[in-house]
Amino acid sequence: MDKIKPNVIGLDLGGTNAVFGIVDSRGNIIATTAIKTQAYPKVEDFVEAGCAALEPVIEMAGGIGSIQGMGIGAPNGCYYTGTIEDAANLAWKGSVPLAKMFSEKLGIPVSLTNDANAAAMGEMTYGVAKGMRNFIMITLGTGVGSGIVINGQVVYGCDGFAGELGHVIMDRTPNGRICGCGRKGCLEAYCSATGVARSARELLETTNRPSLLRDMKPEDITSLDVAIAAGKGDALAKEVFDFTGKMLGEACADFAAFSSPEAFVFFGGLTKAGDLIMKPIEEAYNKTVLPIFKGKAKLLVSTLDGAGAAVLGASALGWEA
Amino acid sequence: MDKIKPNVIGLDLGGTNAVFGIVDSRGNIIATTAIKTQAYPKVEDFVEAGCAALEPVIEMAGGIGSIQGMGIGAPNGCYYTGTIEDAANLAWKGSVPLAKMFSEKLGIPVSLTNDANAAAMGEMTYGVAKGMRNFIMITLGTGVGSGIVINGQVVYGCDGFAGELGHVIMDRTPNGRICGCGRKGCLEAYCSATGVARSARELLETTNRPSLLRDMKPEDITSLDVAIAAGKGDALAKEVFDFTGKMLGEACADFAAFSSPEAFVFFGGLTKAGDLIMKPIEEAYNKTVLPIFKGKAKLLVSTLDGAGAAVLGASALGWEA
Repeated sequence: MDKIKPNVIGLDLGGTNAVFGIVDSRGNIIATTAIKTQAYPKVEDFVEAGCAALEPVIEMAGGIGSIQGMGIGAPNGCYYTGTIEDAANLAWKGSVPLAKMFSEKLGIPVSLTNDANAAAMGEMTYGVAKGMRNFIMITLGTGVGSGIVINGQVVYGCDGFAGELGHVIMDRTPNGRICGCGRKGCLEAYCSATGVARSARELLETTNRPSLLRDMKPEDITSLDVAIAAGKGDALAKEVFDFTGKMLGEACADFAAFSSPEAFVFFGGLTKAGDLIMKPIEEAYNKTVLPIFKGKAKLLVSTLDGAGAAVLGASALGWEA
Repeated sequence: MDKIKPNVIGLDLGGTNAVFGIVDSRGNIIATTAIKTQAYPKVEDFVEAGCAALEPVIEMAGGIGSIQGMGIGAPNGCYYTGTIEDAANLAWKGSVPLAKMFSEKLGIPVSLTNDANAAAMGEMTYGVAKGMRNFIMITLGTGVGSGIVINGQVVYGCDGFAGELGHVIMDRTPNGRICGCGRKGCLEAYCSATGVARSARELLETTNRPSLLRDMKPEDITSLDVAIAAGKGDALAKEVFDFTGKMLGEACADFAAFSSPEAFVFFGGLTKAGDLIMKPIEEAYNKTVLPIFKGKAKLLVSTLDGAGAAVLGASALGWEA
């Protein structure tokens, strides 16, 4: 067996930016570079530009011979095929074999998965889930994503797309909120950053209660504004976080019935609200989880959260590419 | 490595009966014996009596030297510890190390898990899920149980108790039905055999609609009665199965978002109703599953269903004990 090389490449592919990083085995990002995803309507040009941008950073890190592999975290990424399938926020349509394209160009093995699965890999390799064999990563961003780890492996399912916990149905009544997926009542419709802003707008519209948020145009309110108002003691804003956390806690109670994880790891913008979101999650979870699972799973916030987390997560795939 | 021996023992441990079977590698039950679980308030006496009953059958099958191992399917069985934990329908309280007790007595390796996980093992070893690496077994009996297989392994979670899909919450409104677990709105409260009978009673009580079931005392109605009435074209009884199937289909759509299985395998008394239950499951599943999973998972009925299925399922554990 070949000696494991000291570094991997991680690519966090977003709709706007594509951030590349060279990462060592301890999870230090030793160099980064980025290109604009949107600037390349043709994926061939994107790969060309990405490799050109990578060249000097790879040299700096000890040359391509020092790179074990590359991992890509991408929207609608399929681990089994290494393809991106019709991602809504990318210009490249159909099935895009991005892993193969980078692999051929760089001459190293490349793995690809969706961003939430990459985050779970990152957490397991470098973060709070290090050493855990069963945990569930919940990413709270523009959407709600998830990466599920069972017996030390990310769950990809029969098709490579398992782990879409943002789309379990939390409200089956006719009042269920419309979700971006076209269905009603999904967890994501309530507990994403956009869901939180929407909950605030709904409370402002349907009540006359005072709130700092009334100083803003409703359409301008973001989840960050709600968090800031709640931080200042705004009762209405606090209620929005209580509602969001309660729903997340109840959802996690259902997830526990599935895989009885050692921990839930929360990641993403909303976790910045700290206790405002984590306390109601914990309360609702402990109150509603099946008695047999009570007190077993830890509710943790990612310690990788920050600018480099997505690159780190993607890079973790490079070790087993 | 030792040569694999030709047979295994399966024990289906129920509250009333304990059925032992000797099973060969093709899934033929070559001999069975049974004792009354309830007759042994002390577990030591139960193990003693079980081994005494097994002795002649083991001899008939070629002696203990022909037995690779033993598998036990038991309520509240924990795979990791081989113990039964406070099973409501057994007289033995606390943590009962049943696997260890049988192993010491018989001198062979013994594994233990809950009945639904054993059913999943049986399906994967001998049944419709043979060769599948990702599927979810749903057992529809007095309760609703589940056994989840991911990457070819039964999911046990951090504690050995994963896969309690009968206890995901399907109705979060204040009207959610009380479940045996003490919570409200669980899948099991609606889709178990008792849940089906309860749905029928509720429809009879809250409407004046005609039904063959009105000829019975409400408290005597069982799920079998509802199935027979529906089979005769009784509209109210049919509606009960439509309601039950719809809820199961919607629940499975959520489960698909978790592990994207190749198939759902339904097992147990209610599946005897055939299309009456399977059609509405399929309709609701196809209607509500996230678009990315549409058309991927098969909805199957166990082919092992029948008297020996539980013994076969338990025995499957014996091969890897």
